[in-house]
Amino acid sequence: MIKHALQARRATDFAKWYQEVISEADLAEESGVRGCMVIKPWGYGIWERIQKLMDAEIKKAGIDNCYFPLFIPLSYFEKEADHVDGFAKEMAVVTHHRLKAVDGKLVPDPDSKLEEPLVVRPTSETVIGAAMARWVQSWRNLPLMVNQWANVVRWEMRTRMFLRTSEFLWQEGHTAHADEAGAMSEMLRALEMYRAFAEGPLAMPVIAGEKPEHERFPGAVTTFSIEAMMQDGKALQAGTSHYLGTSFAEAAGIKYQDKSGNQQLCHTTSWGTSTRMIGGVIMTHGDDDGLRCPPQIAPHQIVIIPMLREKDADEDQAVLDYAKSLKSKLDERTAFGEPVRALLDIRSEKAATKRWSWVKKGAPLIVEIGPRDVEGGKLALIRRDQLYNDDGRLATRFPEKQSFIEEAGALLEDIQSSLHREADLRLHDNIHRDITDIKEFYDHAGSYPGWVEVQWSKPSGAALDKIVEQLKELKLTMRNVPLDASPADGACYFTGEPAVERILIGRAY
Amino acid sequence: MIKHALQARRATDFAKWYQEVISEADLAEESGVRGCMVIKPWGYGIWERIQKLMDAEIKKAGIDNCYFPLFIPLSYFEKEADHVDGFAKEMAVVTHHRLKAVDGKLVPDPDSKLEEPLVVRPTSETVIGAAMARWVQSWRNLPLMVNQWANVVRWEMRTRMFLRTSEFLWQEGHTAHADEAGAMSEMLRALEMYRAFAEGPLAMPVIAGEKPEHERFPGAVTTFSIEAMMQDGKALQAGTSHYLGTSFAEAAGIKYQDKSGNQQLCHTTSWGTSTRMIGGVIMTHGDDDGLRCPPQIAPHQIVIIPMLREKDADEDQAVLDYAKSLKSKLDERTAFGEPVRALLDIRSEKAATKRWSWVKKGAPLIVEIGPRDVEGGKLALIRRDQLYNDDGRLATRFPEKQSFIEEAGALLEDIQSSLHREADLRLHDNIHRDITDIKEFYDHAGSYPGWVEVQWSKPSGAALDKIVEQLKELKLTMRNVPLDASPADGACYFTGEPAVERILIGRAY
Repeated sequence: MIKHALQARRATDFAKWYQEVISEADLAEESGVRGCMVIKPWGYGIWERIQKLMDAEIKKAGIDNCYFPLFIPLSYFEKEADHVDGFAKEMAVVTHHRLKAVDGKLVPDPDSKLEEPLVVRPTSETVIGAAMARWVQSWRNLPLMVNQWANVVRWEMRTRMFLRTSEFLWQEGHTAHADEAGAMSEMLRALEMYRAFAEGPLAMPVIAGEKPEHERFPGAVTTFSIEAMMQDGKALQAGTSHYLGTSFAEAAGIKYQDKSGNQQLCHTTSWGTSTRMIGGVIMTHGDDDGLRCPPQIAPHQIVIIPMLREKDADEDQAVLDYAKSLKSKLDERTAFGEPVRALLDIRSEKAATKRWSWVKKGAPLIVEIGPRDVEGGKLALIRRDQLYNDDGRLATRFPEKQSFIEEAGALLEDIQSSLHREADLRLHDNIHRDITDIKEFYDHAGSYPGWVEVQWSKPSGAALDKIVEQLKELKLTMRNVPLDASPADGACYFTGEPAVERILIGRAY
Repeated sequence: MIKHALQARRATDFAKWYQEVISEADLAEESGVRGCMVIKPWGYGIWERIQKLMDAEIKKAGIDNCYFPLFIPLSYFEKEADHVDGFAKEMAVVTHHRLKAVDGKLVPDPDSKLEEPLVVRPTSETVIGAAMARWVQSWRNLPLMVNQWANVVRWEMRTRMFLRTSEFLWQEGHTAHADEAGAMSEMLRALEMYRAFAEGPLAMPVIAGEKPEHERFPGAVTTFSIEAMMQDGKALQAGTSHYLGTSFAEAAGIKYQDKSGNQQLCHTTSWGTSTRMIGGVIMTHGDDDGLRCPPQIAPHQIVIIPMLREKDADEDQAVLDYAKSLKSKLDERTAFGEPVRALLDIRSEKAATKRWSWVKKGAPLIVEIGPRDVEGGKLALIRRDQLYNDDGRLATRFPEKQSFIEEAGALLEDIQSSLHREADLRLHDNIHRDITDIKEFYDHAGSYPGWVEVQWSKPSGAALDKIVEQLKELKLTMRNVPLDASPADGACYFTGEPAVERILIGRAY
């Protein structure tokens, strides 16, 4: 019987387990400000790794980073009607620019009321569109491709750390093109970048595909997403890419003179990923001992804990020297084409406390060094993804120091691919393609329902609304039409009409 | 007679020149949103370089990055009285969380009024203090040191790009310590980090010192700053570091149990630098041809322009191949301990247009390659900090390709130190220590007034107010008491009483 580091169990209370991982791995906490979280060093360190790796991919695609205003005047939103409808209901609105003290309390100064209220950006299509309209004159300026790393705010009634918070951090790419083909190709490039990023650095397998009509970004012609399967079988939308047609260009006036001298509207795209990905990583790789952090995004990949007994100063010094020399040797090694990130943990805590704090945080490799290791030229190694032996004891290994140094990079790469393999099997084993009765299936699917793929005729309007409503009663939603799904060859599950494609259905965050 | 790239001249209209550099170097532009700017790729690229290098210094000091909420409840501000007084007058206040359409116009929905308005953070002492109160229990948790990279908002009536905008980007460090000595030492460490950063990567010489009482951060015990001298002789405060005593700790409840088991208040610090530094770089290094970007923070250090004539495809291909091979060789070189950043500019613009765009942006080295260079194994090189010969023509050199590759790193380092040297001479030549009549001095100081250092008795209260008022009439302010100023040895310039220290006075941004 294993004594796990957490109280909650994934199998019995997934929601509670998720909160406990976040708290015990010291990733984030409630801030006291409604709907906003504090991202703590380990959580923010993961975000910094994500930023660094994703930013390199964005730059490689020839896209420049910029920064646009936090505030968007209301009038910008009024220009694109569908966009307003989609966002108007959940925005933070700035109405005053000064406070004054009244009876010892601070209140907004009525004299400082803004003529035009400002919205705190929920996304930046409108304000970036206004800039693009200034920047684009001729076909020579196209494609115009920018990205920003920023905070955005969407007022949420029910919040959940990393998954749905009123304020979150993200990147948003915005591009303008001469024609639909150029814009569609960029939209798909971004989608593929997200797919490869999820499967690579996050070790999180995903299904990339097109969202159904009613799940599109407000104002978009089409929206694509990557969907990951969490360990409770639910879907997490982990990134989206939109082709916006010419409607945002028309609202903002993004026009160019083509080679024949005619004025044309640009075709635009936008695409984004956010701190939500960290929630996905937790629910993909976490276990009953906390997070298992994929090595590529772990702020520290190898944590070295010297076992200082504080009895014999010479002995402690020898242990410390040995640990330091190990760290400096590891610093010279590489994994994933980058220098290995090793940390020497010299906090004044007990070694066991330190060990379990790193287990819960999910450091991929944990090394402990005691006097006997120094004598034998060895070390004690815990591999976070293979924590216990069959007998329920910690699966500690005792490699030679030198061979560990040489193998460290390969070990980290092995952990990364082993985490991916485990999640990939789970994803593909739990997409069900032979379900004839969705209600019955989910009624009996137990604790790990997974997703269902069905053929459908892709109706719109009232017919679509009816299907959406039916699914909603079962707490189900349509996720996406996988890019690599087989062609339809039968009848629509919902309407009985000839099907045109296959779509994934599941419970979702 | 040199024909400069800009219309405005530093010597005759510095303010207009500053705006023109920003626009012609494509650094930023007005956004259309009151007081907010759009930071364009070249400007944001400089900020990314600043972030990268500063972040490394912050991490080296053992400080962790976190992220705290954008919104701060009013009640947090009410806790620290001096802090409120200092900031309450210029904050963006969120009062509603939803919009609704009324007669086709969007308005804040009255039903969505917040019970407690939220302030968009002007700085984060209060909200980070609340987190620190949760995180600190015992002396073992100290020092607690965090930093965040974030946007902040201070409502400004008169704005100026990079120098004073309603929204700006910055880093803010916040630390809690067991005692005054620990906090003061961290406050001075951050100050020294800023001084070294300004003099190093920004090539911008500064004077580090203590601000006088009336210029302190609201609620601080003491504030230190770095002050840089712009090319119009005005001072720019380019970074500040504060010792906050125990008042913020008291307001937020940041307490720890000391080794004897007693509850103690923490001593806290905060320190920040912002996108304002980019304004400082422009006004320190810009000339009548645009920006001269210090190589350490230049997004591209060497720009290679192939001269394609579009007459002979083979010839163009040979030029392009030669340019590409040059770039790939430069990519292998280092400067300042980092890989050289070279760009091959293949935009479909005329070579002369490209050349002048990079001159105005301030790329440190501009390389042009034509068919004759390919034949001769040479290249045409423009060094941005030595743009013209004495005869007013561009000072183009024609080094061998191979020797340029070998010397590129050293050339960049030489440009960096030459920019610093030029600014350093200007700074030290224009601090006047023998002025007996400040009014008369500034009345006749002409276009380059510089600063005055005087001895003073450091009065406070009404006596200080009177001096501040006198100076204000001359549009002068006290900058700081330099850390390395000579000790006082005479009478106070203002009061005639025995002086206690020397203080810098100047016009300022």
